[in-house]
Amino acid sequence: MSVLYIAPGTCAQAAHTLVRELELPVAIERVPLRTPDSPIHRVNPLGRVPALQLDDGTLITENSAILPYLADLKPQSGLFAPAGSAERAQIQSWIGYLAFEVHAGCLRPIFRPDRYSADESTHAGIRAQAIEQLHQALAHVDRHLQGRQWLVAERYTIADLYLGMFVGWLPRLGSERFADLQHLARAQQAFQARPATRQALDFEAAR
Amino acid sequence: MSVLYIAPGTCAQAAHTLVRELELPVAIERVPLRTPDSPIHRVNPLGRVPALQLDDGTLITENSAILPYLADLKPQSGLFAPAGSAERAQIQSWIGYLAFEVHAGCLRPIFRPDRYSADESTHAGIRAQAIEQLHQALAHVDRHLQGRQWLVAERYTIADLYLGMFVGWLPRLGSERFADLQHLARAQQAFQARPATRQALDFEAAR
Ligand SMILES: N[C@@H](CCC(=O)N[C@@H](CS)C(=O)NCC(=O)O)C(=O)O
Ligand SMILES: N[C@@H](CCC(=O)N[C@@H](CS)C(=O)NCC(=O)O)C(=O)O
Repeated sequence: MSVLYIAPGTCAQAAHTLVRELELPVAIERVPLRTPDSPIHRVNPLGRVPALQLDDGTLITENSAILPYLADLKPQSGLFAPAGSAERAQIQSWIGYLAFEVHAGCLRPIFRPDRYSADESTHAGIRAQAIEQLHQALAHVDRHLQGRQWLVAERYTIADLYLGMFVGWLPRLGSERFADLQHLARAQQAFQARPATRQALDFEAAR
Repeated sequence: MSVLYIAPGTCAQAAHTLVRELELPVAIERVPLRTPDSPIHRVNPLGRVPALQLDDGTLITENSAILPYLADLKPQSGLFAPAGSAERAQIQSWIGYLAFEVHAGCLRPIFRPDRYSADESTHAGIRAQAIEQLHQALAHVDRHLQGRQWLVAERYTIADLYLGMFVGWLPRLGSERFADLQHLARAQQAFQARPATRQALDFEAAR
């Protein structure tokens, strides 16, 4: 059986939620992070989650690869689209945008300013500027969702799932800066209302 | 006919090189960047390249989506792999890693420290630390390539193409810091030796 390694409160929530959406026979394994004796280091040399280990030992990392791979296991779910279709490219494009601009481009400097500067006195400034960049990056998505329920096509896809997770993190930033992004709030509510989202969150909150 | 918008010396080189590898009937259109009257703004509200506009007007952005989409147009090329395969997930995973860790995580703070801090006196420190992070991110790829010619499977894929582009940029950083990454240098030579790579570079250098 494949194993998905996760840690509560991280971006592994996206892959985890998708496993539950698709009701896949994938074992979910919680691991501690940033501690040298975590079992994650035996699986993923980067020590990061999500990490999907297939039956034969093959390791797949990156939400931008794990979400498409899992969705392709159940094409009839409609959460993705056939290879070669423009819809599929658009879904992969939104996932790429969210990974690149929202996660790597903004959330990382907000949560880990030490990765950008060793000088602690600069961290508050880096965080404040990254909040502004995040607002810009998300406002682009909000405009796209104007008059549209889903990011691509007329249905919930892995792009909406991934977006819903990130928008659900905004309250953690303790900033009112995002209150104007009404379409995003709606997208997050749709994500939140899905049983699979609730199941994944409950599992991550337990123990 | 689809149109791929590019600008010389940018990450659009990856999508451009792939169009030439696959000999696809895609028009290549050079646009200026960061100027409000560039035609790119009529196509991509973000004003960025690469941007692929399909026949019907559909816009695809992000190398992590454009490379897979184009490669799926010619599956017989072997530059990608069938939907549902572990190989495909591994190729998409390396592309995701390079986009997230190398491009967004390190090259952006190196080339655009102003995006992270408005205080110019911090920029040299941000750049120096991002060079170290970049070395770490690339050393992971270098270790993976030890005893292996290609990132995934036994053939050149879109992951190797994307990697070759980034490694080809390292001399621009004016740093000897990357000289130890011998397997990457070899991967870059393989990329550089391909006729499609040369054609794309020549086209971008012309005029
Ligand atoms: N690009 C990766 C990001 C993975 C990542 O950064 N995971 C974080 C949690 S959100 C992690 O495991 N951090 C632990 C560490 O860096 O040591 C993805 O999208 O899957
Ligand atoms: N995540 C995008 C990045 C696109 C990007 O940042 N392109 C740069 C060139 S490398 C650009 O167009 N910059 C112009 C600007 O930001 O105004 C991708 O991987 O395709």
